[in-house]
Amino acid sequence: MGTAEEQKVQQKKAFGWAARDTSGFLSPFNFSRRETGDKDVTFKVVYCGICHSDLHMIKNEWGVSTYPLVPGHEIVGVVTEIGSKVEKFKVGDRVGVGCMVGSCRSCDSCANNLENYCPKMIFTYGGTYYDGTTTYGGYSDIMVTDEHFIVRIPDNLPLDAAAPLLCAGITVYSPLRYYGLDKPGMHVGVVGLGGLGHAAVKFAKAMGVKVTVISTSPNKKKEAIEHLGADSFLVSRDQDEMQVAMSTMDGIIDTVSAQHPLMPLIGLLKSHGKIVLLGAPEKPLELPAFPLLVGRKIVGGSAIGGMKETQEMINFAAKHNITADIEVIPIDYVNTAIERLVKADVRYRFVN
Amino acid sequence: MGTAEEQKVQQKKAFGWAARDTSGFLSPFNFSRRETGDKDVTFKVVYCGICHSDLHMIKNEWGVSTYPLVPGHEIVGVVTEIGSKVEKFKVGDRVGVGCMVGSCRSCDSCANNLENYCPKMIFTYGGTYYDGTTTYGGYSDIMVTDEHFIVRIPDNLPLDAAAPLLCAGITVYSPLRYYGLDKPGMHVGVVGLGGLGHAAVKFAKAMGVKVTVISTSPNKKKEAIEHLGADSFLVSRDQDEMQVAMSTMDGIIDTVSAQHPLMPLIGLLKSHGKIVLLGAPEKPLELPAFPLLVGRKIVGGSAIGGMKETQEMINFAAKHNITADIEVIPIDYVNTAIERLVKADVRYRFVN
Repeated sequence: MGTAEEQKVQQKKAFGWAARDTSGFLSPFNFSRRETGDKDVTFKVVYCGICHSDLHMIKNEWGVSTYPLVPGHEIVGVVTEIGSKVEKFKVGDRVGVGCMVGSCRSCDSCANNLENYCPKMIFTYGGTYYDGTTTYGGYSDIMVTDEHFIVRIPDNLPLDAAAPLLCAGITVYSPLRYYGLDKPGMHVGVVGLGGLGHAAVKFAKAMGVKVTVISTSPNKKKEAIEHLGADSFLVSRDQDEMQVAMSTMDGIIDTVSAQHPLMPLIGLLKSHGKIVLLGAPEKPLELPAFPLLVGRKIVGGSAIGGMKETQEMINFAAKHNITADIEVIPIDYVNTAIERLVKADVRYRFVN
Repeated sequence: MGTAEEQKVQQKKAFGWAARDTSGFLSPFNFSRRETGDKDVTFKVVYCGICHSDLHMIKNEWGVSTYPLVPGHEIVGVVTEIGSKVEKFKVGDRVGVGCMVGSCRSCDSCANNLENYCPKMIFTYGGTYYDGTTTYGGYSDIMVTDEHFIVRIPDNLPLDAAAPLLCAGITVYSPLRYYGLDKPGMHVGVVGLGGLGHAAVKFAKAMGVKVTVISTSPNKKKEAIEHLGADSFLVSRDQDEMQVAMSTMDGIIDTVSAQHPLMPLIGLLKSHGKIVLLGAPEKPLELPAFPLLVGRKIVGGSAIGGMKETQEMINFAAKHNITADIEVIPIDYVNTAIERLVKADVRYRFVN
């Protein structure tokens, strides 16, 4: 039976766009995926978001990429085939896959629905699957994924604008919940207004939280307040504005992955306030200890979310009509889109 | 009546040891304290611990000292007089005062028994009291303190060895509770084995936690395990030992106030683990963001504890027979003791 299983591996023809080397240039790529296994769901990919991490991966900037590399981990589509033991999905269902397609399913993290912190978590692309094959992402026509790592997209969410929720959405939703920054009346800052930041504003507002966007760019103020619904806006370089806002926030969702000073952000927190880092600058940040001590403040991290919480997030988004702001592009525009993303020239997420 | 109140200020003769300038040299000092007010408790000081922060204060190393400065905030004694509205104490009671003698009593922190985080918290020495006078600490013969800032020392705790609990004890007890590192079966690391560290080992052990001491000094191993009851010992410079201990700890109580790398400590944490900083190095620490994100780890701070929790800590210490390890000295040895403390030549706390 093991042999039969092995023969089923990588038999399903697939087509996608792959980077072939560290230039990161994407070009058409014919490959294959495994046949639909007992617990697998196969779905036609309808849309896939372009996440900032795709940029790093296609150019091997984190040193973990192998080529050819088919990126994409904000994947939505419609089920075309299910395995014999699939329980939760049927053909025709609207589904999505985020950053991971596998985990050990037995460690403490997995037992607590935190597959995202499983040491053996398998990334949606560039990872090594249980069968030894390399995983390929959603810049492609079909996906074959274990049903445990698939979420259902509620009917009222448009597929294209829902796609980025599978990474950007859960990445901001999970820490708002875990760090207790989800209580109505609280005041939360959101640093950086890109794919993650704009989603953070929407989710926090839907939770009843007062939201202040903190940005280096004054020209984002109108957008943040009028379009995204933030309550206020702080220019981080404006020391007078920052001074007035000192000690007013219960928490800060910090989406910035470039080097930046933590000290002013710590100052914005009330006692017992929390900064959650979602971006990882290459070099260490400077952490002043004294202000942490005297205000019992916390700097923590968070990375995506578990499958149960991802479904919860999508359901919450559906209930509150939260979607990402997107620019839908044809796949053959992808290399240009990536150039624009490097320059932050998108509001707020490309979807192909 | 205001005038009568004012006349009562600073009428009670007191004697202590004070630093007169940044040399930090302590010498005999005659001064006065206020008469016992309605809510005040006056007590004879029997013992006072020498905290590491006293060193910084007598030499104005934090830039906030004024002279003459009478240090001491680990103060225990016996009540000699009470004000007409004092409810909790009577003459003859065994009492103590820690790091603070006042706060606004109306802010959120005060309302939540967290007077230690009140922006108007008044330090036991070197602070400015409500009446405008400078506060003097426990290197003296008597204290006059509002009863709200006094704790009762249970009968089974020796006064001398209980004194350091009022600062060192609460400083480690509060974060063990707040950060949830107090659950039986958890594994907590304690970095640094001085006044705070040795108390952290004792409190954590009494909570049923497995304790590993992490130190740069291999020669503290025997002491940590055989005398203090730690379960294991890690030499932080031994990379093999550190490697084996990776991802094994639920939390770390970091008592080190010198510059030190956080990265190896973050590595010792399991996912969702927490490092609590209790010491404040002068320069910012280096905080690598990536390991915080992928393990949803936290670096937080903590500073002493509120009055309610300080009493809870003392009661817990009494129940579990926890006291500080001390070397009792005569007050005229204090300048030598301070020189020895600079060299960490004490196990683990001087009490005068």
